[in-house]
Amino acid sequence: MDVLLLDRHNYHLFQPLLYQVATGSLEQEIVAAPLRRLFRRGSGVRFRLTEVRHVDLSARRVITDSGPVDYDYLILAAGSVTNFFGREEFRRNAHDLKGLDDAVRLRNQLMQAFERAAQVLDASERDRSLTFVIVGGGPTGVEFAGALAELSRQLIARDYPELAGAAAHVLLVESLPHLLSPFPAPLREYALRRLRAIGVDVQLNASVRAAANGRVILEDGREIETRTVVWAAGVSATPLAASLNVSKNRNGRIAVRPDLSLTEHSEVFVVGDMAYLEQDGAPLPQLAPVAMQAGRHAAHVILDRARGRSASPRPGQVRAGRPFRYRDKGSAAVIGRGSAVFRFGGVGASITGFVAWVLWLGLHLLYLVGFRNRVLALLDWGFEYLRFDAQVRLITSDSERTG
Amino acid sequence: MDVLLLDRHNYHLFQPLLYQVATGSLEQEIVAAPLRRLFRRGSGVRFRLTEVRHVDLSARRVITDSGPVDYDYLILAAGSVTNFFGREEFRRNAHDLKGLDDAVRLRNQLMQAFERAAQVLDASERDRSLTFVIVGGGPTGVEFAGALAELSRQLIARDYPELAGAAAHVLLVESLPHLLSPFPAPLREYALRRLRAIGVDVQLNASVRAAANGRVILEDGREIETRTVVWAAGVSATPLAASLNVSKNRNGRIAVRPDLSLTEHSEVFVVGDMAYLEQDGAPLPQLAPVAMQAGRHAAHVILDRARGRSASPRPGQVRAGRPFRYRDKGSAAVIGRGSAVFRFGGVGASITGFVAWVLWLGLHLLYLVGFRNRVLALLDWGFEYLRFDAQVRLITSDSERTG
Repeated sequence: MDVLLLDRHNYHLFQPLLYQVATGSLEQEIVAAPLRRLFRRGSGVRFRLTEVRHVDLSARRVITDSGPVDYDYLILAAGSVTNFFGREEFRRNAHDLKGLDDAVRLRNQLMQAFERAAQVLDASERDRSLTFVIVGGGPTGVEFAGALAELSRQLIARDYPELAGAAAHVLLVESLPHLLSPFPAPLREYALRRLRAIGVDVQLNASVRAAANGRVILEDGREIETRTVVWAAGVSATPLAASLNVSKNRNGRIAVRPDLSLTEHSEVFVVGDMAYLEQDGAPLPQLAPVAMQAGRHAAHVILDRARGRSASPRPGQVRAGRPFRYRDKGSAAVIGRGSAVFRFGGVGASITGFVAWVLWLGLHLLYLVGFRNRVLALLDWGFEYLRFDAQVRLITSDSERTG
Repeated sequence: MDVLLLDRHNYHLFQPLLYQVATGSLEQEIVAAPLRRLFRRGSGVRFRLTEVRHVDLSARRVITDSGPVDYDYLILAAGSVTNFFGREEFRRNAHDLKGLDDAVRLRNQLMQAFERAAQVLDASERDRSLTFVIVGGGPTGVEFAGALAELSRQLIARDYPELAGAAAHVLLVESLPHLLSPFPAPLREYALRRLRAIGVDVQLNASVRAAANGRVILEDGREIETRTVVWAAGVSATPLAASLNVSKNRNGRIAVRPDLSLTEHSEVFVVGDMAYLEQDGAPLPQLAPVAMQAGRHAAHVILDRARGRSASPRPGQVRAGRPFRYRDKGSAAVIGRGSAVFRFGGVGASITGFVAWVLWLGLHLLYLVGFRNRVLALLDWGFEYLRFDAQVRLITSDSERTG
């Protein structure tokens, strides 16, 4: 069996910690594991750095920037892109947190905003530089807003004597009446209380009408002067999904059969954010644990078939593989230093506060790829916890966007 | 006393380890220390992130991107830029190793070259991708060439099964008849032997006539097909020096009096690579230890004057400060894993090999700014030494230059 991994990056990215790269808590290298190192000795996996342009399903061929690749089985796991709701204006003026470059660009922008605030003489321009609007109160928006509020307080207190007496304005805009939709109500309320306690201005039932020229306009007409808009309002299917002539749901996710293969092409599997499958009457969420379990499942279905364990009932037909079943082990979000919400899967229990935060740290350390990255993350978090001090404050290039 | 530090970067860069960022041994964050953190509690130093455009010496005013700054005393320490000998073609087609962005760009280029070599079907294009030309056999060129030869061997043996049997061609071009000019002859010869032993193709008495379109042409007519040219052939004065109407030497360095001040403007001091001063009949070298000692000296001269210890002999005149004297404590260069050359200052002794390498490691750890960076560098070097494995292999953006 010959396994070829195609990716346009040469690293695996651990997205759940990307917001910590943006707020300077972690070096970018910690959340990105080089793929060739993961698949080294005798793994049987080859890697090619390339961009996939299209899949010719009937010819069983992937069209890449470095030529075509024929396949017997295909697993599509190209993820999702930030959902700007089709608004070019938001895409151009807002930062998002999908890729490693996005996170570094956002960190540069945050640090530049503080530098500008420290230099300008005009008070309204200083306030504009210190105003940060985050759109979307899901886990990414909540975790980033909390981390940014704490970073801002640290920076003003220690690094920017010019800003003594000033305060950053971290505004979190959520269109629903609550934060953290996937979580039970008590956890949502805890998150809201904690965020407000550390100084985040949370606006519920609010959405963004326009964002340009240093200003965000909400649907209710309120205007916020800002130079930094962070878009965390959800994801939509990757353009690769749109290019395929297969059945999709409203969000552009590709509908798969219970064994994760395509109805029309049983040799093609779709896993992760690209795939659409319902379980117990609800769509599976676009989360890393679903993707990881689905990836393993698709691999097993393919192995079963390759080993002839699912012999075709009729010639030319393939028996469907075992149905995929997502086992929800729980989910968590950090609100700030020493506080998090943690929902356990299955039993329905949940906890908040310091213990939830420690659990979160431990689990994320385990999920980081590579012993070395775990050691470095532990060091970073240890230094930060003991000294209340984010580690990475470099402005590494001029990549500013002004919202 | 009010001290204002102007810099166009928000970090202090430890240039001697920059080549290790380029070859993936160290994360970029380790060699860059945020300036605002260095000058925090009660240091009396303010910082402003800005680019200095010009100095109006007669008005005692620095013109910056964020407005003018008046001064009583000025210390110019803007360093040097890579010397491309006025050849726009070299500047455009070659990588250099002066700034943090240069090092990251070069690392991206190296990793992309290996990825391309692994994909192309044409053998000559594969060889071109695996050919790396380094121009300049000073410490930077030697250290980078040695590290690249070792990195290439690691990568081909472990990460690129597609390249089994292939070998990278690391070519080091030096116009003098020996490497490492500042070092005594036995050390130069040791470095040459060691570099050749680890597979570096060292060409002495050779210089580059042209570099473009995937090809380098030497003065003797030889042509080398390559996609990566690294320029380490020396430095020249920063453009800021050129803009000042004061006496300069041939290389554009600003001539200073023995106390490091300007003849025409005794309130202006120049230190580091920008300054030109002779000691015992020879110009002081453009090295970090000279710059560090000169910086301290200029500060002391200013403090003495400010405290009235060098009262003016005549009204309107300033007595010159104590003359600066560089104390050469030695210098070192790493050739490869477990081997270095180390010249002690003063006594004239020197050592080579493993002990020199350990000394080099220890000293560079000490000179790294910040406890945390030292811990991380030690970890990186430890991991790499034990596992023969460079740490950082990310391609973080598409920033390719083709030489």
